[in-house]
Amino acid sequence: MKEIKTAEILCVGTELLLGDIVNTNAAYLSRKLAELGISVYHQTVVGDNPERLKKALADSANRCDLIITSGGLGPTYDDLTKETIASFFGRNLVRNEKILSHLEAYFAEMGRTMTENNKKQADIPEGAIIFRNDYGTAPGVCIEDEESGVTAVMLPGPPRELEPMFGEQVMPYLEKRSDSILVSRNINIFGMGESAVENILRSLMENSVNPTVAPYCKEGEVRLRITAKASDRNTAYAMCSEAVEKIMETEVGKAVYGIDSDSIEGELVAKLIAKGKTIATAESCTGGLIAKRITDVSGSSAVFLGGCVTYANSAKESLIGVKHETLAAHGAVSEQVAIEMARGVRQALGTDIAIATTGIAGPGGGTPQKPVGTVWVGISGEKGDRAVLLRLSSRRERSYIRTLAASNALYLALDEI
Amino acid sequence: MKEIKTAEILCVGTELLLGDIVNTNAAYLSRKLAELGISVYHQTVVGDNPERLKKALADSANRCDLIITSGGLGPTYDDLTKETIASFFGRNLVRNEKILSHLEAYFAEMGRTMTENNKKQADIPEGAIIFRNDYGTAPGVCIEDEESGVTAVMLPGPPRELEPMFGEQVMPYLEKRSDSILVSRNINIFGMGESAVENILRSLMENSVNPTVAPYCKEGEVRLRITAKASDRNTAYAMCSEAVEKIMETEVGKAVYGIDSDSIEGELVAKLIAKGKTIATAESCTGGLIAKRITDVSGSSAVFLGGCVTYANSAKESLIGVKHETLAAHGAVSEQVAIEMARGVRQALGTDIAIATTGIAGPGGGTPQKPVGTVWVGISGEKGDRAVLLRLSSRRERSYIRTLAASNALYLALDEI
Repeated sequence: MKEIKTAEILCVGTELLLGDIVNTNAAYLSRKLAELGISVYHQTVVGDNPERLKKALADSANRCDLIITSGGLGPTYDDLTKETIASFFGRNLVRNEKILSHLEAYFAEMGRTMTENNKKQADIPEGAIIFRNDYGTAPGVCIEDEESGVTAVMLPGPPRELEPMFGEQVMPYLEKRSDSILVSRNINIFGMGESAVENILRSLMENSVNPTVAPYCKEGEVRLRITAKASDRNTAYAMCSEAVEKIMETEVGKAVYGIDSDSIEGELVAKLIAKGKTIATAESCTGGLIAKRITDVSGSSAVFLGGCVTYANSAKESLIGVKHETLAAHGAVSEQVAIEMARGVRQALGTDIAIATTGIAGPGGGTPQKPVGTVWVGISGEKGDRAVLLRLSSRRERSYIRTLAASNALYLALDEI
Repeated sequence: MKEIKTAEILCVGTELLLGDIVNTNAAYLSRKLAELGISVYHQTVVGDNPERLKKALADSANRCDLIITSGGLGPTYDDLTKETIASFFGRNLVRNEKILSHLEAYFAEMGRTMTENNKKQADIPEGAIIFRNDYGTAPGVCIEDEESGVTAVMLPGPPRELEPMFGEQVMPYLEKRSDSILVSRNINIFGMGESAVENILRSLMENSVNPTVAPYCKEGEVRLRITAKASDRNTAYAMCSEAVEKIMETEVGKAVYGIDSDSIEGELVAKLIAKGKTIATAESCTGGLIAKRITDVSGSSAVFLGGCVTYANSAKESLIGVKHETLAAHGAVSEQVAIEMARGVRQALGTDIAIATTGIAGPGGGTPQKPVGTVWVGISGEKGDRAVLLRLSSRRERSYIRTLAASNALYLALDEI
């Protein structure tokens, strides 16, 4: 089979056409194919309808080297992807005894009875490659059609089945079909906007061929993805690392919170564990979001002792000892209260560091002096206590302001330790 | 122009093909079109490439009455949707002075300079209908092509611009193009699985034509959507309400937490406000998620005084007075500790009601006696203190277990007041 240069994604499912679910599979597969250096020019969604699927298949087969489908591999009567594609490529379906016994074992383990229609999941097109399903029943299937030169990979619809199957089995298969390998590294940036990053790195980004450097932004964060192509993994990784070092030496380096990192909170928990330090939180406007994000990280219990969500002023006083006079003199959204909140929760829980937020998330509650988006982040630690003022845009919605306030607080804590 | 029966969604953007963003627009538009009774048989994504867009347009125009595009209306050189579609339907672009002055005002308000390329956003195909953009610069455009009978609606890519534009302007336009109107009502169910709901309502659902009854499920919740078609809104609404009443009289009614409700937490905050009651939270395994969800609701400050995230045992003792002996005797994940947590935070903050969670979210920390997914929810209120044991599946991931534990706690609180 020839090398794969272009691919199309063909998702099958009436629930997608009704808008009942968002098509995360198309995004996931596109991202992974981009990592492999395979170009995607079309994504298509059709329902569980063999005629329209066949027509979409014919269009795709004329345009690309690889077709990846998701959905329609299940046991019910309207799951027809495998049957339709096998027929399109002129292959018969043959019952695979190994898969059948795997299915029987799966049902036995779950304590469920296997009905007759479940057996069709063990029917495989002649000569196809099989990808096992570790998280469900329907295996993935790959047909390499010598005549047209087209490869068709069929994957199950549920993301929790599709993603591990693709990552663990289809990626290695596609890498083998290529004579070069792609490796990506990510630089995670916080507190510097996309355009500022681009201004500093413009020439580097515009001239980047191998490795390529591309920016992505999401809720106040910028991620630079560096991707190198080489004949082996070590060479590609070294090429990426060289570019990473070059970028770290620029002004952008100062705003980098992690390399190949998942999130600010993930980086924070790792750093706290490495340094043997503990943290606590006191939240007003973020309402528990900071604690939630820290405890999203598995293993955070080693460093996060706890926190308070002191939404009402009375809670600020009773739980973490913010002084009534401070609240009366400066208001809840103030530098002084932010500091007292951080200090108070740090003392109450006896942690090395504490962060606090108090602000106006909106939509109500803004004043000319303290408009929606005004947030004070307090920090208390071995270096002393201080607070930082954030002026987040009052044009943005409540959830955005809360997310950005939480990210800033987490970033400040990361910077402090 | 003829009545619109079928539509296709055509999203334009290289960022979609690279998997950098998930295509929420396709899901949103499909859902809204389903509500209007318009069938969608294809969703397509192409990049910012006029040739491929033109080809996709031609395919769609042959198959449906309405094409809705998203993306490619911006000011940059690769934003070519409007130009390509206008040329496809043989229309010239004409600069619209009203939109131009709207753009100038927008830039002045933002304190930014309007560059020459921004002006092309004011270029409109001859004879087109214009949808104003309240949240950005590019207006939406609609071409009614008499010759082919096809209507093309072009919308901006960012969801925060597209969704209000569609909801407030395109929906009414499409309703006018139809001689009947659709109205939907939603029944929100918690604590009863989809198959249990279907078993009870099978005959009602299978025989539903007008109104239709369809179930949707997401993270432990089931939503029943009832949709009626009639010549006017009042009649359609009355038809829905009659079906709602019928369903409420079945066993399903007992698990309904709201009708036309956004979320359990939204319902909880509304009920607390209505009854003049206050609430507090004490969270271990949910780590702030319950407080975060309550404070997601705008206006929650009237009823939510605050909460504690007592992740470590020491925090359970120092912040909300859980007894050392209780922890030693029963362990943190126990009925007794859940009750003491709820009681403790209720006393500390002086609220009418308090809820608490303590459990094992995984992936680590499970034992044969208390496997991952074991969660105690404590509740303290005017009716006394108690705790409920949840056994969530240990096969599910941390985030799912935390979400379900939080939903259960919120539901119990809603039930209590």
